[in-house]
Amino acid sequence: MVGGYFGKFLRVNLTDKKIDLIEFTENTLRQYLGGTGLGARVLYDHTGSPTDPLGPENLLIVMSSPFAATPIPTSGRIDVVAKSPLTGIWGEAECGGYWGSGFKQTGYDGIILKGKCNSPSYVLITDEKVEIKDARHLWGLDTYELDERLKKEISPKMRALVIGPAGEKMARIAGLFTDGMHGRAVGRAGLGAVMGSKNIKALVVLEGSKRPTLVNREKLLESIKKITPDLVQKTEKRKKYGTLASIPFCEETGDLPIKNWAGDRFKEGALKISGERMTETILVNTYHCNNCPMSCGRVVKIDQGEYAPVYGSGPEYETGGSFGSMCLVDDLEAVAKAHELANRYGLDGISAGNAIAFAMEALEKGLITKKDLDGIELTWGNGRAMVEMLHKIGQREGFGWILGEGVKRAARQIGKGAEEFAVEVKGLEPPMHDPRALASVGLAYATHPRGACHTAMSQALEVKMALPDMGYPNPLPPFQVEGKGVLVATMQDYIALFNSLGICRFMLFGGLTINHLAEWLQNVTGWDITVEELKKTGERLTNLKRMYNVRCGISRKDDTLPPRLLSHRRKEGGAVNYLPRLGEMLNEYYEYRGWSEEGYPTRKKLKELGLTDEIKDLPYPT
Amino acid sequence: MVGGYFGKFLRVNLTDKKIDLIEFTENTLRQYLGGTGLGARVLYDHTGSPTDPLGPENLLIVMSSPFAATPIPTSGRIDVVAKSPLTGIWGEAECGGYWGSGFKQTGYDGIILKGKCNSPSYVLITDEKVEIKDARHLWGLDTYELDERLKKEISPKMRALVIGPAGEKMARIAGLFTDGMHGRAVGRAGLGAVMGSKNIKALVVLEGSKRPTLVNREKLLESIKKITPDLVQKTEKRKKYGTLASIPFCEETGDLPIKNWAGDRFKEGALKISGERMTETILVNTYHCNNCPMSCGRVVKIDQGEYAPVYGSGPEYETGGSFGSMCLVDDLEAVAKAHELANRYGLDGISAGNAIAFAMEALEKGLITKKDLDGIELTWGNGRAMVEMLHKIGQREGFGWILGEGVKRAARQIGKGAEEFAVEVKGLEPPMHDPRALASVGLAYATHPRGACHTAMSQALEVKMALPDMGYPNPLPPFQVEGKGVLVATMQDYIALFNSLGICRFMLFGGLTINHLAEWLQNVTGWDITVEELKKTGERLTNLKRMYNVRCGISRKDDTLPPRLLSHRRKEGGAVNYLPRLGEMLNEYYEYRGWSEEGYPTRKKLKELGLTDEIKDLPYPT
Repeated sequence: MVGGYFGKFLRVNLTDKKIDLIEFTENTLRQYLGGTGLGARVLYDHTGSPTDPLGPENLLIVMSSPFAATPIPTSGRIDVVAKSPLTGIWGEAECGGYWGSGFKQTGYDGIILKGKCNSPSYVLITDEKVEIKDARHLWGLDTYELDERLKKEISPKMRALVIGPAGEKMARIAGLFTDGMHGRAVGRAGLGAVMGSKNIKALVVLEGSKRPTLVNREKLLESIKKITPDLVQKTEKRKKYGTLASIPFCEETGDLPIKNWAGDRFKEGALKISGERMTETILVNTYHCNNCPMSCGRVVKIDQGEYAPVYGSGPEYETGGSFGSMCLVDDLEAVAKAHELANRYGLDGISAGNAIAFAMEALEKGLITKKDLDGIELTWGNGRAMVEMLHKIGQREGFGWILGEGVKRAARQIGKGAEEFAVEVKGLEPPMHDPRALASVGLAYATHPRGACHTAMSQALEVKMALPDMGYPNPLPPFQVEGKGVLVATMQDYIALFNSLGICRFMLFGGLTINHLAEWLQNVTGWDITVEELKKTGERLTNLKRMYNVRCGISRKDDTLPPRLLSHRRKEGGAVNYLPRLGEMLNEYYEYRGWSEEGYPTRKKLKELGLTDEIKDLPYPT
Repeated sequence: MVGGYFGKFLRVNLTDKKIDLIEFTENTLRQYLGGTGLGARVLYDHTGSPTDPLGPENLLIVMSSPFAATPIPTSGRIDVVAKSPLTGIWGEAECGGYWGSGFKQTGYDGIILKGKCNSPSYVLITDEKVEIKDARHLWGLDTYELDERLKKEISPKMRALVIGPAGEKMARIAGLFTDGMHGRAVGRAGLGAVMGSKNIKALVVLEGSKRPTLVNREKLLESIKKITPDLVQKTEKRKKYGTLASIPFCEETGDLPIKNWAGDRFKEGALKISGERMTETILVNTYHCNNCPMSCGRVVKIDQGEYAPVYGSGPEYETGGSFGSMCLVDDLEAVAKAHELANRYGLDGISAGNAIAFAMEALEKGLITKKDLDGIELTWGNGRAMVEMLHKIGQREGFGWILGEGVKRAARQIGKGAEEFAVEVKGLEPPMHDPRALASVGLAYATHPRGACHTAMSQALEVKMALPDMGYPNPLPPFQVEGKGVLVATMQDYIALFNSLGICRFMLFGGLTINHLAEWLQNVTGWDITVEELKKTGERLTNLKRMYNVRCGISRKDDTLPPRLLSHRRKEGGAVNYLPRLGEMLNEYYEYRGWSEEGYPTRKKLKELGLTDEIKDLPYPT
C-alpha cells in the first residue's frame, strides 16, 4: 500500500460471481501509475490477439489513479480499457465527472470485469461490499433515465457509470457514461459494447468514507494553491463559452471537418453553432467535473420547437463538429438534440456523427436509398433526419444497426465504392481535427494506439500553445513537417501520464507542467519520482500499448490515413491544397521512438523501458 | 474487313468444343485497335466482378493487331488479356517474339478462349482449320522442352505460345511463353494460370499463307525505311549489351531495388551482374523479335560450374534486378540460371524474384524457418538456394507453393508481421524501378490498371529521354512532383496504343513518334486517323480498363504504394531520403484525367470517350 493508493484492485468474474482483490507490487504501481497505464499492463497480460472483444474472455478494466479523491485539480477522471470491438486492437477511453473520486472513496483503485452475467446486472460498490445485482428492470433505460432511477432506487448520492441501449445491444460505437444528464462520456473505441456484452448495465458507487493517504499533504495543497489562479484565469474562454467556442476559428483555419471530410467551408454555419451563439441562446448553466477550476461543461435547455425537449449536457467542440459541420447542419438546436441523444443512447458522439455524415454521402451518391434508410431523408444539412437516424442507431434498428457498427464495417456492408469515403484509422473514426490543416494531427491519427485520436494535443502546439517544460518554448508552424515526429511522440507519452493519473489534459492550457505532475506524485505517494522518470513512464506506456497492437498484427502498414485525409485537398479556406507528408513524419517519429522502420519497438528500447518480457512478442527480432 | 485486319476473331469454347468466328464493326476496331485495347473491350463485356479468374467463365484473350505481319518494326507482339488470378482485377501482359505474326498469317486477329477442357489439350491453328488436340503427353514439360517437342511433333516451323509446369498448376505468378529457348514472356499478372485453369498447354500456329492487306504499302515502306537507321543507331547500346546494361547506372541513381526494397547499395554486385560483364562472359548470341531493328535479346550458355547447363535466353534488366540485387545475388551465373528456370517453369521473373527476396527476408526475420523451406538455406546472396527455391516454385512443391501465390497471399499466409514487408500494388509485385528514385514511378505503380507496372515508361523521361511529339522537349527532373501526374497519364495512354498495335515501346528510344503510329495506321488501314484521334484512343483504353477495375471495387484508396516504397527511406546512394509525394501527384493525375477525387472517371469523361454504356457501371454518378 502506497500513499495515494489504497492498492486495492477488484477482480470480478461475472460468470461465476467470484469477487476478489488483486494486488500489484509497488514497483508495478510506480511503473504504470494507474488509469490507462496500469490498465494496459493488465490488459496486456490477460488478453491478446485471439481475444474476442465481445466475448466473455475480454476484460473491462475501469481504473482509478493515485490522484483520485485528492484535492488535485481535475483529479478523479475515469480510465477504461478493453480490447476494442470497434478496432480489434488496444482500446482506451476516459472521462471526467464524479464517478472516479466516488469509486476511490469506497476504497478501491480499479475494477477488472471478466466473464459475463447470465442476465442484465449491475455492480454495486460500497464501503462494505461489492455486489452483483439484478438489473433486468433497468435494461432499456437511457443513460439519463437510468441515473435518475438509480438515484431513486439506491440513493441520491450514488454515482453510476452506465451504458445506454446502444451499449446493451453492443453497438461497436457505444461508450460508457456517467453523471446522468450532465453526460460525461467514456466515448471512444466502443467500450460500452464490451460492458453490454457482459450484461452489465451500470457500475454504481455509494458515497464511500475512505480517503487516500497523502504523504505530504501540506506541500501538495501549497502547490495546488499556487497554480490554481492560473488554471482559472488562462482557461476563462472555455469557462465562458465551452469548447464549442473553437468552431468558427477552426473553420477558418481549415481544421474543422466539413461534409464527411470532403467540404471546404462552413463559415456562416460555424457562427450559427458556435459557443458564443449557444451562450446567447440555449445555455442555462455550466458544469464542471470533480475539482475542476475550468468548467467547460455546458447545460442547455430547449423547451419548444421541433427539437424540444432538450435538457442537460450541451454540445462541445467534438459533437458540434460531428453533428454540425460534418453533416452540414447549422441548426444549433438540432446539434444540441443530437448531442443529447448520443448521450442518452450511450453512443460515442464523434463516431456517431462521422457515421451519419458517411451515410449522408452514401445516400447522396446513390449507394443507398431513402428506402434503405427506412424512409429517412438523410440529406446534407437535414437536422431532423440526422436526429431520426440517431434514434435508429441508438435503438439499433434498420439502417441504424449498420451505422452502429462504425464507418469501416458500414462501408464494407454497403460496398460499391463506399469504402472510398469511409474515414477511419485502424477502424476508429477521427475526431474533429484535420490533418490537412495541422500536420501533426495526421501523424497523431496514424500512430495513436487506439486509432484516429487527437488527445495527444500536439495540434495545440500548432495553433498557439507553448509548452516550455516539454521543450516547446514556442508553438510550431502548422504545415511544417520537421519536428512533428518528435512533437507527436513527446505529447503522446505526456498525455499517457494524464490518463494514468486521472487528470484532464486541458490543464495544459492553464499552465500545468510536468514538474507539477512529478511534484504532486511525490507529495501523494512519497516516491522520489523525477520528471525524467515520469517521461520514461509515459514512453513505457505508449510502447506497451504499441506492443499490444503489434501482437494483433499492427505495423507501419497500418500507421496510415484514409484517402480523404491523405490526398484529398481542401480547395478553399485556411488549409487550401495542403496534404500531410505522412511518410516523412513517420520516419522522424519512429526514429525518435527507437522503433524499427517497420514500426516495431526495438528490443533495445523495450529493454530500456523495462518491457523485457514483451520482447518475445515481437514478430521478429528488431 | 479493313486493311491490316482480316477482321476475324476466333471464339473457342473449350467446354463444348464449339469454335466460331466473331466480328467487330469497323467502328469498334478503330476505337479499340487490337491487342490489349480490343481485348479490354471483350473482357469488359464478358467478365466482371463476380468472375472467378481461375474458373471456366474467365476468358483468355490473345490478341493480334493491325500491324501484325506487316513490315512495321517490332510489329506482331502478342497481347494477352484476362481477369488476373494474382490481382483479381484487370490483367494484361504482352511480349514479342514470332508467335504474333505467325498467328496473323493463319488469318486471324485474335483468339478468345472460354470454358475448360476436360483434359490437357492444345489448340492448333492453321490456314485451314482450328483444332483442339490432346496434350496429355505434353503436360509437365517445361517451356523449352515443349517447344522442341512440338517442333518435332508438328513441324519445325510451328510457333507455340505455351505454359510451363507452373501455369499448369495455376501458380498465380505464372505467365505464357513463346519462342522456346529464346524465352519471350507474357509474364505479368498470372495469365499463365488462367491458361492452365483451362487445361490448355499451348496455342500452336503453323506457318500460314495469309497476309494482311496494306492500303498504302508504298508509303508505309517509305516511312519505315526513313526511320529505320535511327531505330538501329539510337538503340545500339541495348543491342550491344542488352537491357541488363542499365543495372550499374540504376544502382547508382537509387532506382535499382535491393534486398527486397530495403537495401541501399549494391555497387560492386551491380558491376558483377551487368550487361557488360555478361557480354564478356556467358553471352553467345543475341536474339531479336519479329522485325526488330534493335535486338535486345540475349542468348547465354554456361557449360560448367554449379549452374551448368544453361543455354538460351539470358537475363535482362528485370530478372537481373529481381534475381540479382533484390536477392543480393552477385553471381551472374546464378542469375542466368534463375532467369532460365523462370522461363522453363513458365514463371513471371519479376514476381518470382520479388517472392524469393520476400522469403529471404521472412527467413532472416525468423518468421519462417529453414524447415519451412524444406531445408533450403534461403539467405541473402545465396544463389544456389535461390535456384533451389525457384525449382520449388515452378513445381509448386512445399514452400514453393506458397510463393507461387504471389507475395501478397504468401504474406497473409505467413502472418506475424510479414505483410509489413510484402511489396506489391493491388497484388502485383513491382518491376525493378524505385519510386524513391523517380517520382513518376510511384504514381505509375499506384495507378496502372494492372497494379505495379512501369511499362508506361514515364521513368525514361525522368532519366534522359525527351519526347517532343508528346509535349516533352526535355526530360523532367526525377524528384520533381509537379507535372508528373500529366506525364504518367500521357505515357500510360500512349503506351496503351503500343500494346494495342502490337509494337515495342523501346522504339521510343529510337525516335519513333506518335506521328509514325498515325501515319502507319493510315497506310495500313486506310483510316483517316489523326494524332489527336490516336491520343483519344489511348485515353479511351486506359479509361475502359479503369472502369473494369472500378467494377471490381477499385478506387483512390487502392491507388497507393506499400510502406516500403511510400515511406521507407533509402539511406545511401542516389535517392537518399527521398519519398514519393503520392497524394499530390495523384491529384494532378486525376485532374488531368478528368476523374473524380475518388478516382472514378466522370460521366463527362466517359461520354467524351464514347464509353457511354459504361456510365451505369460507376458506383455512383460522378
